[in-house]
Amino acid sequence: MEFIINQTMLEKATSSKALFYQEREAFSGVNKIAKKVMHDLELVFGHAPVVTTEKDKLNSHVILYGTVGHSPILDELDKKNLIDLKEIEGKREVFLFQVIDQPIEGTEKALVIAGSDKRGTIYGLFHLSEKLGVSPFVDWNGVRPKQKESFYLKSDFKYVSKEPSVKHRGFFINDEWPAFGNWTHERFGGFNADMYDHVFELVLRLKGNYFWPAMWSARFNDDGPGLANAELADEYGVIMGASHHEPCLRYGEEYKYLRGPDSEYGDAWNFITNREGITKFWEDGLKRTGHFENVVTIGMRGEADTKIMGEDATLKDNIELLRDVIQTQNKLIKENINPDLSEVPRMLALYKEVEPFFYGDKNTEGLINSEELEDVILMFCDDNHGNLRTLPTEEMRDHSGGYGMYYHFDYHGGPISYEWINSSYLPKIWEQMTMAYDFGVRDLWIVNVGDIYTQEYPLSFFMDLAYDFDKWGTDAVNKTDLYTEQWIEQQFAGVFDEEAKQNVYDLLTGYTKIAHNRRPEHMNVDVYHPVNYQETDQLIAQIDHLLDVADELYEMVDEEDLAAFFSLVYYPTVGNLNLQKMWLLNGKNKYAASLNLMEANQLAEQVKTCLKRDQEIVDEYHTIADGKFYGMGLSEHIGFVNWNEDENKNPVLSHVLPVNKPRLAVSIDGTEQTSEGSPWHLNTLYLTDFLAPDIDQGSFTISSISEKDADYEISTDNAWITCSKLTGTLNGQDQASATIQVTIDRDKLDGETEGEIVVKTPVGQVTIVVLVAEIDESAYPEMTFVQTHPKGYISIEAEHFADHQEITNEHGSMNRFEVLDGYGKTLSAIKAFPTTSHFTVEKDAPYVEYQFVVPEAGSYQLELYRQPSNPVTREGKIFCGLQTNDNYVKVINALPDGYQVDDADWAQGVLNNIHKTETTIDCKEGLNKLRIYAVSPGFVLEKLVIYQEENKPADSYLGPTETYYVGR
Amino acid sequence: MEFIINQTMLEKATSSKALFYQEREAFSGVNKIAKKVMHDLELVFGHAPVVTTEKDKLNSHVILYGTVGHSPILDELDKKNLIDLKEIEGKREVFLFQVIDQPIEGTEKALVIAGSDKRGTIYGLFHLSEKLGVSPFVDWNGVRPKQKESFYLKSDFKYVSKEPSVKHRGFFINDEWPAFGNWTHERFGGFNADMYDHVFELVLRLKGNYFWPAMWSARFNDDGPGLANAELADEYGVIMGASHHEPCLRYGEEYKYLRGPDSEYGDAWNFITNREGITKFWEDGLKRTGHFENVVTIGMRGEADTKIMGEDATLKDNIELLRDVIQTQNKLIKENINPDLSEVPRMLALYKEVEPFFYGDKNTEGLINSEELEDVILMFCDDNHGNLRTLPTEEMRDHSGGYGMYYHFDYHGGPISYEWINSSYLPKIWEQMTMAYDFGVRDLWIVNVGDIYTQEYPLSFFMDLAYDFDKWGTDAVNKTDLYTEQWIEQQFAGVFDEEAKQNVYDLLTGYTKIAHNRRPEHMNVDVYHPVNYQETDQLIAQIDHLLDVADELYEMVDEEDLAAFFSLVYYPTVGNLNLQKMWLLNGKNKYAASLNLMEANQLAEQVKTCLKRDQEIVDEYHTIADGKFYGMGLSEHIGFVNWNEDENKNPVLSHVLPVNKPRLAVSIDGTEQTSEGSPWHLNTLYLTDFLAPDIDQGSFTISSISEKDADYEISTDNAWITCSKLTGTLNGQDQASATIQVTIDRDKLDGETEGEIVVKTPVGQVTIVVLVAEIDESAYPEMTFVQTHPKGYISIEAEHFADHQEITNEHGSMNRFEVLDGYGKTLSAIKAFPTTSHFTVEKDAPYVEYQFVVPEAGSYQLELYRQPSNPVTREGKIFCGLQTNDNYVKVINALPDGYQVDDADWAQGVLNNIHKTETTIDCKEGLNKLRIYAVSPGFVLEKLVIYQEENKPADSYLGPTETYYVGR
Repeated sequence: MEFIINQTMLEKATSSKALFYQEREAFSGVNKIAKKVMHDLELVFGHAPVVTTEKDKLNSHVILYGTVGHSPILDELDKKNLIDLKEIEGKREVFLFQVIDQPIEGTEKALVIAGSDKRGTIYGLFHLSEKLGVSPFVDWNGVRPKQKESFYLKSDFKYVSKEPSVKHRGFFINDEWPAFGNWTHERFGGFNADMYDHVFELVLRLKGNYFWPAMWSARFNDDGPGLANAELADEYGVIMGASHHEPCLRYGEEYKYLRGPDSEYGDAWNFITNREGITKFWEDGLKRTGHFENVVTIGMRGEADTKIMGEDATLKDNIELLRDVIQTQNKLIKENINPDLSEVPRMLALYKEVEPFFYGDKNTEGLINSEELEDVILMFCDDNHGNLRTLPTEEMRDHSGGYGMYYHFDYHGGPISYEWINSSYLPKIWEQMTMAYDFGVRDLWIVNVGDIYTQEYPLSFFMDLAYDFDKWGTDAVNKTDLYTEQWIEQQFAGVFDEEAKQNVYDLLTGYTKIAHNRRPEHMNVDVYHPVNYQETDQLIAQIDHLLDVADELYEMVDEEDLAAFFSLVYYPTVGNLNLQKMWLLNGKNKYAASLNLMEANQLAEQVKTCLKRDQEIVDEYHTIADGKFYGMGLSEHIGFVNWNEDENKNPVLSHVLPVNKPRLAVSIDGTEQTSEGSPWHLNTLYLTDFLAPDIDQGSFTISSISEKDADYEISTDNAWITCSKLTGTLNGQDQASATIQVTIDRDKLDGETEGEIVVKTPVGQVTIVVLVAEIDESAYPEMTFVQTHPKGYISIEAEHFADHQEITNEHGSMNRFEVLDGYGKTLSAIKAFPTTSHFTVEKDAPYVEYQFVVPEAGSYQLELYRQPSNPVTREGKIFCGLQTNDNYVKVINALPDGYQVDDADWAQGVLNNIHKTETTIDCKEGLNKLRIYAVSPGFVLEKLVIYQEENKPADSYLGPTETYYVGR
Repeated sequence: MEFIINQTMLEKATSSKALFYQEREAFSGVNKIAKKVMHDLELVFGHAPVVTTEKDKLNSHVILYGTVGHSPILDELDKKNLIDLKEIEGKREVFLFQVIDQPIEGTEKALVIAGSDKRGTIYGLFHLSEKLGVSPFVDWNGVRPKQKESFYLKSDFKYVSKEPSVKHRGFFINDEWPAFGNWTHERFGGFNADMYDHVFELVLRLKGNYFWPAMWSARFNDDGPGLANAELADEYGVIMGASHHEPCLRYGEEYKYLRGPDSEYGDAWNFITNREGITKFWEDGLKRTGHFENVVTIGMRGEADTKIMGEDATLKDNIELLRDVIQTQNKLIKENINPDLSEVPRMLALYKEVEPFFYGDKNTEGLINSEELEDVILMFCDDNHGNLRTLPTEEMRDHSGGYGMYYHFDYHGGPISYEWINSSYLPKIWEQMTMAYDFGVRDLWIVNVGDIYTQEYPLSFFMDLAYDFDKWGTDAVNKTDLYTEQWIEQQFAGVFDEEAKQNVYDLLTGYTKIAHNRRPEHMNVDVYHPVNYQETDQLIAQIDHLLDVADELYEMVDEEDLAAFFSLVYYPTVGNLNLQKMWLLNGKNKYAASLNLMEANQLAEQVKTCLKRDQEIVDEYHTIADGKFYGMGLSEHIGFVNWNEDENKNPVLSHVLPVNKPRLAVSIDGTEQTSEGSPWHLNTLYLTDFLAPDIDQGSFTISSISEKDADYEISTDNAWITCSKLTGTLNGQDQASATIQVTIDRDKLDGETEGEIVVKTPVGQVTIVVLVAEIDESAYPEMTFVQTHPKGYISIEAEHFADHQEITNEHGSMNRFEVLDGYGKTLSAIKAFPTTSHFTVEKDAPYVEYQFVVPEAGSYQLELYRQPSNPVTREGKIFCGLQTNDNYVKVINALPDGYQVDDADWAQGVLNNIHKTETTIDCKEGLNKLRIYAVSPGFVLEKLVIYQEENKPADSYLGPTETYYVGR
């Protein structure tokens, strides 16, 4: 017989027929969580379960939960051999989830949830919720689970969870103004325990165990009120941490609050001039909450996230000061928390200027390998924009304290902040965080989530990856899609049918991919090219489609599910896409205005509509669900001109004034070619789309320059050319432009490679030369890219290699390139595995080989479009090998010499989310082979562009359209 | 008793009491002109004079006119010794204008107007009109003379005119579409004799004798109809010429019209392949009108003003072809006009590519000094933008044919055409054309006047200068103002009182000076800097003042005088200024929008108003005086993006969208410094105006960035600083900005050199550091410029030299610099005289010496702002000498190496109407002297700017504001 929970059972339950058995020996936090799980059951079944502390008041099917060493009933069951606690005992955060028979007299079946420790039990309890289809965001976002009649577990169901992959897993509420700050003041009256109750619940439901609180204005250990926040964390088993610049359990604002001429802590955040005051400050911090579970930050930075010593201090000065600080802190910890330092989790962040202090340089030994750092978790950081910086080298990996990673989904800093809305993309998080794990960063993962809200989707992935790396980690190549599907199921199983869930999938993957190409806060009028390769038009079309899909879903959702849908999907999607669209339209508006095209004014109106929509959607977010999210949309997000939001600007609209004569401009779509047909100026344009042998349709657009009726007439003498329209009149108002589709019939070409379309305009005529290429497919191998015009280029998506080589390595795995789906601006990326390997060319380096045909021998520019990864070593280089044809392999550094995180190159890279490596290669006339060898970790290739210097492809943000290849 | 004409006399005149005596022996053209003069008398006195051919039907006071050799009455008076014809006989275009007693029985007094030749008599007749106060534009513009009761000449009045200074003086109707072409078709039905009657009258009233007709669509010798145009010219004594590419009395369109496969002239404008046809074409042209007075163009260019041979022809090929052409043409002229070629005025234009053919090069002898060119007028040209190119060298000056100059008030060509409206400035015409004359260009002056209309003012000056160089030429330094006053008197004596005439003076000199700084067609949004040095605001203020003055005058003018006032003054003034203002406002609009200032939108509306006004004023021009000027405003004039008007663009308006928070920007007027007061970004601004010891007032402006009420609060702790306002609120709408005047009281400084104004804004505060400098005037000599701040600069108006040296030359005149008033963008210019001299430094070169104080010794940048004069020699260099303190004199070429007319440097120069020479000088700390020596002709200096490279003054169009000098 199965273990059953069903509506009837719950409905009919009385206080003497309880489903849950509660022990007073249990951790109070565990019992609190059990209550939350009971509420989950109520949501699922419509009736709240009854709980009892008396064994004789139990239902026939009961739920028993407890923690090893804190539960008589578990001991009893263990004794009866109904369960085997040895399966979990001594393990970290593990639970047993088992159905047993007749556990207690008068009962038939029990579901036993036994935790190896407090968090193990809590995860076990939430595991039940999860199995019932309850989302971790049930409370945070008001996600309603799908109602169930009943729930079964097989009579022999048993599940023992694994120890989590990463020891400390959590997130950081940061940059909490204006959004989080306003929100919590409005809803809870401050950064207090009422609010943190919800946050801790979220941490635990996400199987996290670690948390950094808001700290720019708040004082976690004062705001509870008093210690209530810290006590609540301890009760729930949430391990408290603090950011990299908040040592000894003291939060950032505290010193500012306590300092003063008469303060026992002195009046200077300076370990040299105020050693005594600062030491006392730290000591009192440790005394205050050192008895709770913490990861104690050690080290010291300047106030408010700045450097500790002046610019004129030497490296040695800095290192010695820091050593002194850490020695002092270690001593205080020994005295106040535990004489055995190895028992106290401590963390030193290798962040910004601390990094050189850690490593030292040729002349000055750094803190690395210092005894002061024994057992200390060394926390590495990304570059604040989601790209890891240095990682532990092989020699470093056995450091006793292990390693941590501070990652960002939100950042307040240069080159431009992003704090408004989620713009993180799962494939990137996967690619970066799996590499961190591979490099041995397994003791602490913390992610800056800003205000939490809108980050739910990537945050879930980050936490699940940290919890179960086996499932989602390095071996799960290209599984973020699957993850997304499951996540959608978790949130919307009861809301949407399969088709609608697929639409939600399209929205989440769509908007995050678009934000991955450019974060919304980093958008401006000049990012995408307004016409080249139609990258703007294509993106607008994609956005418009997604916005339609979002609106359809919105219409579909019940009032009760709207908060969840709106906050988890609709708001981040529409907010993001509408903003991107606004800038794209603004780019078109600016461009059209530069040509005096009347459509510029219509585009300006559309930009205005987007700006209005932006405000509307924030307003709706603020009012929906009785203001549940009020304040959470307050971050500035338009037109950053500085690293922060100060002095940000709205789009400038360009308006044109009609000229006094009927005039028209003819433009080749996807290019900057334009002409009015004046006999004195450029009046021959080129339509080159058909140079790709599989393209039979192209277009040009005729646009009004005045509001006077202006006629055009289109003709061609080539029978193989068809234009969608042959005459027309534009008026600059309701008829401001006409796009003419040009179709060719290759069967009628009869050897011709050039045709002509003549467009008569009011001032003359424009000749459009139509270029066509055909190739003999049999002449080249499959996957050969063919440049069909002397002035063309070769553009290759990295995954379109013709050949590749994998080599078995000493660990028995394969040195290989993997295609990372979706992980490129226009298609995908390739990355070499194992991710930690430094390969040697012509020994163990895997390669990919591209084939392409160019019409002329000579030196060609090669552009490698790479993910803006940083080097994993402090050498500051990412090497790869290039080999054309039978030439020797040239190993190049894909980064500019002297590349550093925070320099201008880096800044361009994180804004564009691409780093271009430019080099030259020698090509033969005709077929060429180009091999690319993996050498350094961090080489992630998206696209290759090859061209003769004089034929540089037109500017664009995404790069030139891919060239035709045999077999496309 | 005086010679009298009065109203009563004319009113009472009967057919037997005629004022004018007309002889049938007189030239018919002279009698026609006499009729026009009689009409002038009617305008002046209100009654038409009577004319008779019978001596006994004359009034007691009579007017007798005739030409030597064509007038019995003159012979009779000469015989009676009442006049002495020897005074004029054999002279060129000279007239005697004399009052005599009892010339004919029954008469008492006669005014005798005797011409040495046909034009002499005509000029004499028009001299009477002139004396009566009739404008040369009486017919062309409908200028009404002031009505008179009577006119007296003393009984012994006698005036014998001089021979005109320049032999052939005239103008060229060119680029006649769309304006002139539409006008003449509408009013006269074509380019026919009805129209040319008015044009020839204008030529002669302006004391011209020479004319080039419209030729881009018209055929002068066919359109009369038939030969009527040519016959009319001959009758009036107007010598016909043709442009540089229309040889042998054939006009440009003729060959196109006559050519064809069956044409006797062949079907190729090619002297190599169609020698026979072309020769016949020329021969028939000479036969057709060779018997009239002409200057026959010789030589050959390609069709429609292009090169004659392909790009691959050698210089020698070209020279020999051209020699062959000229030999052929000379032969044809001998055969068909006069066997004595020296009797036939001929002209070869050294225009564009013909210039190298004339001079040849080191290896190839040019046409210079060829016998084929004996007695041929060699016509030089300006660079199409009013700057002469090469001029005859001293050795060349005795060329038998003499020299001509083709000058432009209108141009259809690169870098940008200017055809709409007058933009020529009298001081420039004076400076350039006097130099031409000085260099021996005295045989032919022709000016391209486009459609004539709106060029009346500079055209008058050009013609008067050519006619009477003694009066207006080289010796008349700074007399263009006087000329303008007289010209205004000539046009408006009867219309305006003295004050109003002064206003007209302000308009004419004002708008032409502004157009001299930048022609209207060459304006765009990026010319003037929108804020630096307040050059835009100051110019807008000046323009607004002039526009007000224009409108006041407009209100003052009678309906009958409106056509004259509108066409001569109002239209060119307002058209020009309104257009300049439009672009200036557009620049401010664009700049304000870039800062999201709400005032941008108000500026956009103002730009629109200007564009509307532009159309209105053209429309009024087209309808005023029953359409007298219809068509004359049709030329495009806004937003050129090519050399011609094709594809021109209207201003693009920038609109901002208010941000959602109250925000304000504080900007220091005249600088790009701006801040919102954010603590994270630039929030300290500098008010540096008071670094000039004579400036006690400066300002800053606070501007709205949103439409929300935003407060500001201004405070200062310095007693010597006063702000005009201390608090306020802006709303981005009717209160979008506030300018705060800052006044300092130097008496209260008490040694302070720095103060502070704090402006509290909604997001923080802006600190304005107020810098003040005082200098001890007694420490330096008068006219010493003082840089009072280490980061400052020295800017000097060229006329503000402290000392200068003049040297007596071998001709007994002075080698000297003269100040040319008004001939600079911001003040004046200096130029060395004699204009033809090449001076030698430290021998005969005059210099000017500037004094200035810099705070630091070192290398300084020196920028010389020069008129964009071209070198007068083919070496392509303009030298000057520079000497700082006691250093040696450095002779530098003020032009870039390899400078050529038509290159990019030149193009920048003609558009900006300035050429900047940049060099370095070494300065001492403290007082420095800089001498500038004249070396080459053509060195015309406006301004000097001196600065250390790192302190480069902010960008501007007019250059940095002049630095304070002792005694200012």
